[in-house]
Amino acid sequence: MRYGFLGPETTFTHQALLQALEVMPREFTDTVEQVPFAAVATATTDLLAGEIDALIAPIENSVEGGVSGTLDVLAATDSITIVAEQIVQVTFVLAARAETALDDLRVVSSHPHAQAQVQGWLRENVPGANVATASSTAAAARDLASMSSEEAHGRAAVCSPLAAAHFGLTVLAEQIEDNSGAQTRFVLVTREGRIPARTGADKTTLVVQLPHNRSGALLETLEMFSSNGVNLSRIESRPIGDFLGRYSFSIDAEGHIEDRRVAASLRALHRICPVVHFLGSYPRIDGQAPEPREEFADATYDQAHAWIEKLTAMVTPASEVEGAGTGSPAAVDARPEPDA
Amino acid sequence: MRYGFLGPETTFTHQALLQALEVMPREFTDTVEQVPFAAVATATTDLLAGEIDALIAPIENSVEGGVSGTLDVLAATDSITIVAEQIVQVTFVLAARAETALDDLRVVSSHPHAQAQVQGWLRENVPGANVATASSTAAAARDLASMSSEEAHGRAAVCSPLAAAHFGLTVLAEQIEDNSGAQTRFVLVTREGRIPARTGADKTTLVVQLPHNRSGALLETLEMFSSNGVNLSRIESRPIGDFLGRYSFSIDAEGHIEDRRVAASLRALHRICPVVHFLGSYPRIDGQAPEPREEFADATYDQAHAWIEKLTAMVTPASEVEGAGTGSPAAVDARPEPDA
Amino acid sequence: MRYGFLGPETTFTHQALLQALEVMPREFTDTVEQVPFAAVATATTDLLAGEIDALIAPIENSVEGGVSGTLDVLAATDSITIVAEQIVQVTFVLAARAETALDDLRVVSSHPHAQAQVQGWLRENVPGANVATASSTAAAARDLASMSSEEAHGRAAVCSPLAAAHFGLTVLAEQIEDNSGAQTRFVLVTREGRIPARTGADKTTLVVQLPHNRSGALLETLEMFSSNGVNLSRIESRPIGDFLGRYSFSIDAEGHIEDRRVAASLRALHRICPVVHFLGSYPRIDGQAPEPREEFADATYDQAHAWIEKLTAMVTPASEVEGAGTGSPAAVDARPEPDA
Amino acid sequence: MRYGFLGPETTFTHQALLQALEVMPREFTDTVEQVPFAAVATATTDLLAGEIDALIAPIENSVEGGVSGTLDVLAATDSITIVAEQIVQVTFVLAARAETALDDLRVVSSHPHAQAQVQGWLRENVPGANVATASSTAAAARDLASMSSEEAHGRAAVCSPLAAAHFGLTVLAEQIEDNSGAQTRFVLVTREGRIPARTGADKTTLVVQLPHNRSGALLETLEMFSSNGVNLSRIESRPIGDFLGRYSFSIDAEGHIEDRRVAASLRALHRICPVVHFLGSYPRIDGQAPEPREEFADATYDQAHAWIEKLTAMVTPASEVEGAGTGSPAAVDARPEPDA
Repeated sequence: MRYGFLGPETTFTHQALLQALEVMPREFTDTVEQVPFAAVATATTDLLAGEIDALIAPIENSVEGGVSGTLDVLAATDSITIVAEQIVQVTFVLAARAETALDDLRVVSSHPHAQAQVQGWLRENVPGANVATASSTAAAARDLASMSSEEAHGRAAVCSPLAAAHFGLTVLAEQIEDNSGAQTRFVLVTREGRIPARTGADKTTLVVQLPHNRSGALLETLEMFSSNGVNLSRIESRPIGDFLGRYSFSIDAEGHIEDRRVAASLRALHRICPVVHFLGSYPRIDGQAPEPREEFADATYDQAHAWIEKLTAMVTPASEVEGAGTGSPAAVDARPEPDA
Repeated sequence: MRYGFLGPETTFTHQALLQALEVMPREFTDTVEQVPFAAVATATTDLLAGEIDALIAPIENSVEGGVSGTLDVLAATDSITIVAEQIVQVTFVLAARAETALDDLRVVSSHPHAQAQVQGWLRENVPGANVATASSTAAAARDLASMSSEEAHGRAAVCSPLAAAHFGLTVLAEQIEDNSGAQTRFVLVTREGRIPARTGADKTTLVVQLPHNRSGALLETLEMFSSNGVNLSRIESRPIGDFLGRYSFSIDAEGHIEDRRVAASLRALHRICPVVHFLGSYPRIDGQAPEPREEFADATYDQAHAWIEKLTAMVTPASEVEGAGTGSPAAVDARPEPDA
Repeated sequence: MRYGFLGPETTFTHQALLQALEVMPREFTDTVEQVPFAAVATATTDLLAGEIDALIAPIENSVEGGVSGTLDVLAATDSITIVAEQIVQVTFVLAARAETALDDLRVVSSHPHAQAQVQGWLRENVPGANVATASSTAAAARDLASMSSEEAHGRAAVCSPLAAAHFGLTVLAEQIEDNSGAQTRFVLVTREGRIPARTGADKTTLVVQLPHNRSGALLETLEMFSSNGVNLSRIESRPIGDFLGRYSFSIDAEGHIEDRRVAASLRALHRICPVVHFLGSYPRIDGQAPEPREEFADATYDQAHAWIEKLTAMVTPASEVEGAGTGSPAAVDARPEPDA
Repeated sequence: MRYGFLGPETTFTHQALLQALEVMPREFTDTVEQVPFAAVATATTDLLAGEIDALIAPIENSVEGGVSGTLDVLAATDSITIVAEQIVQVTFVLAARAETALDDLRVVSSHPHAQAQVQGWLRENVPGANVATASSTAAAARDLASMSSEEAHGRAAVCSPLAAAHFGLTVLAEQIEDNSGAQTRFVLVTREGRIPARTGADKTTLVVQLPHNRSGALLETLEMFSSNGVNLSRIESRPIGDFLGRYSFSIDAEGHIEDRRVAASLRALHRICPVVHFLGSYPRIDGQAPEPREEFADATYDQAHAWIEKLTAMVTPASEVEGAGTGSPAAVDARPEPDA
């Protein structure tokens, strides 16, 4: 199995892939090859071409919002399915070659983006060190790892815990980001053809395009979920690209397509929206199972369905009513006219 | 075929029955027996016992509103189906034994209820005549018909056009009611077992009991129709009888149970309402076919259904995902734990 | 103060009036005159003419439903206001002139309507007695009271507890109705001009006529209450009278017109409904105070109102923007054109 | 007046500023200074500090979607108001120092981003030229303008029409972008304190944060607009930043805060949403005036308001009902108890 990820190695996406592999059934992880990519679009092309079997990509960050690159590729690609999600805590460590007192650090290197997120901590805890720029947090760690011991003395890198571990560095301080709690959510994507079985704690991802000839279309769309007791855990607007003010919506709904309430919502969307793109039903990483009210339980839908089946079976075919059973057209002709 | 009606003969309900018979297929009208009843409840008992094959009863009057007696019997009875409706124009004629100038009339007889509805016309057009009371408009007509010519001279009856015709009277003036336009709607009811075929211009009658533990239940119920593009042509509250403020609703929805949008509405009601009593789908007497928007057309529902079927077929059975394909339980046991 | 009621004396409506008088402030009860009427319409005419100061009428029965006579008069009358409600338990007693063993009773008299409601009890408890018909339950009681002791021996009446007490009879058995729990709700109506102050546990009664050119009008109307957190405790359809299928709705909403959420609902109804007839805000007899969520509290509405006031005050009058402050038309003329 | 814009000069934001100045009243354009900024955040700081009087920033692009940088600054800043919008057509020209046949071009320079958008056109129309990279489209134009005639011979730049005009270049071809029709919308922002007067064709911009303790909160929010007949021309989700799945919504509603229907919507939002940030009511650049149905017209709201005022004036103060008018506590004490 070949798994693509947004590289280089030890990125947060890489970490998401490792997390995903840990919880997969053994058959999917026996002979794993991890393939770094520079962009989701490229990885998707390779996925569709069969070069890789799956890819993992960030979809949402708690600070930055939806990841447009991933959302737009998912929305535009027809034959792929999300089969799992992962959440990675965005956190940084200060790592050196060996245990070092913070006061002894002279240079701390990192990528500017990471520097911005830890600058408060550095100012307070390592005020004497210079901040050097690396091309990535992974590169900062790798470079430090490849130095001679003398050269590395007094130096540290700001990087992900994964990078520190991967390059054999010693962690001097953890969780040094100024605002803790940032998270990124990732999705594992395969070629279409298989939807993971319902676990009871699932999520369904869709992209819907609203009918643009009616105001209130978003309201109407949301009502379809609401009237079937389906909560949305994410809704994001993305421009369709043709006119200002034309959006598609990327939606995560709670539940699995095998849940009757989810299937009913999707059927309703399919009726009213010009485009409904089903991107997958897959287990929630947090394992939280919704507890639908009785009116939204599978059995309730099934009973309603059976009731209508029973009633519909009682409908007399038109031919019988018209007297066709006699085989005689005359029977029909002889019917008195309303005004006769 | 034995047809029950609220008697006596020549009532407006009788007229509704005659109208209904005129438009029925010949097979239902070959050997008709018309059976008058004093009450809907009695007729219903006879219908269920097989004494009669159908009954016709008033359900709604444009001035008086829902006919409680009929509504409550329909709501409470399980094995009956409405198969047709009729509308009768509530109108009165002034009828005599022979052509007579209005000025020559000395006595006009009728039932007090009818008198009330024509008193303005009588005051203006027959100011010199005395008004005599009969036990019914039918009786007024019948009595006049059975008099000798001499006795009948100078006399007229206020009755239905049907009564005048039935008793061979001469109509001196038509539509003499002070407020024209009053109508009564009737339903033709049979034992359950057969629903008339869809004509495209149909009506479906229901009695629903709302969930009483939730405010906004009526709103929620109406939304189920609205989100499926189904209009209601009648909605009437009736007390359930146990507590003040507990109601059931008698509803006429536009469309037939074979219309996908109607079936979808009913399924939704069945989920949220403790009681949904289906009373029939039958042709509208006015023949007005609704023109549902494309999103509510049968084909649209069918396509949505097929789409979900296709997706659901892609769901992998849980057994396969768990590695059951290897036939080895060990495969599952060997799966790494998330925290391993 | 002259109070009208549906007579004769000792009817359930009379009892409702007595209950109402008991809880009124003293100023309204010092010199009370109780005036029986045969019909709500007549009493209403007298109320408007100043012949009486208030009237009490049944509006709803837990078994029979809305009292059409009262509902239609209230809907059609402009200058009246409901100022209180009463609920009367519909219950019957068996009363005699003196303590008597049930086995010694030979004749039990009552009105046929009441007989129907107690027939099971009589069959079981007084199987040996004949049932005699009186013109009303009140008459049954009064007649028994006016007999000689000898004549009254072995006789009893089925009547209201009030009638038994009023005519000095001895109650042999209470609550003898076969189905207990039936209730009738009454409203106390005055000429318009004064709405009782808010108590916190109030009810507002309306009659609304729906816009007939739009399907979904009832849904839309109910949403106005729902979006302001106002529950409805009663909703009843009544025909408007012009066409089949045209209804007005008689509604009891929880809350007082001084509650911001009720006022907001009513303003919205006033916008969308061709007719909204306000019939009164008055204390609930059951004293149950609704507990609106914070978003529906008065303070929340007031803060929202103040916020918009503040914003609106920041709008620049058009004149200032146009440079009119300079008094120089040239200033405007000199403005460059968009395409210049 | 000092106006900030996202620089450098001749950017599309600069063009938006020039467009905005063209349609402003003379008083705001007499002594204009145009100040380029590198980021919206910096410009906003200067605006609040009084260093500039207004700033213009892109808010939405028809291809890329919402401009996160601008949306997040607007959402987070309290004392600013949008007073106008502009739309700029995103289009490129091929410009040279003098009229030149396309076949004679040897070098075409531009910024890589612009190159990507015109590469198809270049391949087809200038297949023989090399593509050189400039630091911006403005720089490509400026560099070409500063060359000697000999040096400039055979060279062209891909830049905005504004840049070509600004640097005195000759336009060889217009609208050379491969996908035409892309637009960017800009907003003109001032310090709070003044809202432009209603023109009848206005837009109101908000940022709302949904109540996070209730599912269906977005649905509920949209219903507040819908029930007041207010259409939304833009709705965009932005993460709040604390947790995954927590969003605020940036909304453009049709209408002005002085429109009663808009004010009513905003009041309702203020009640149910923990945060409603009003960013301005301002004229729509397209001049399209909505035509609200009668039920959403100002007069309809005013009449409803007046009706409730009239009714509320009829409410009797509690003190009067309690008989306080007599000044005698005894009057109250003497009131009969309900059970007396």
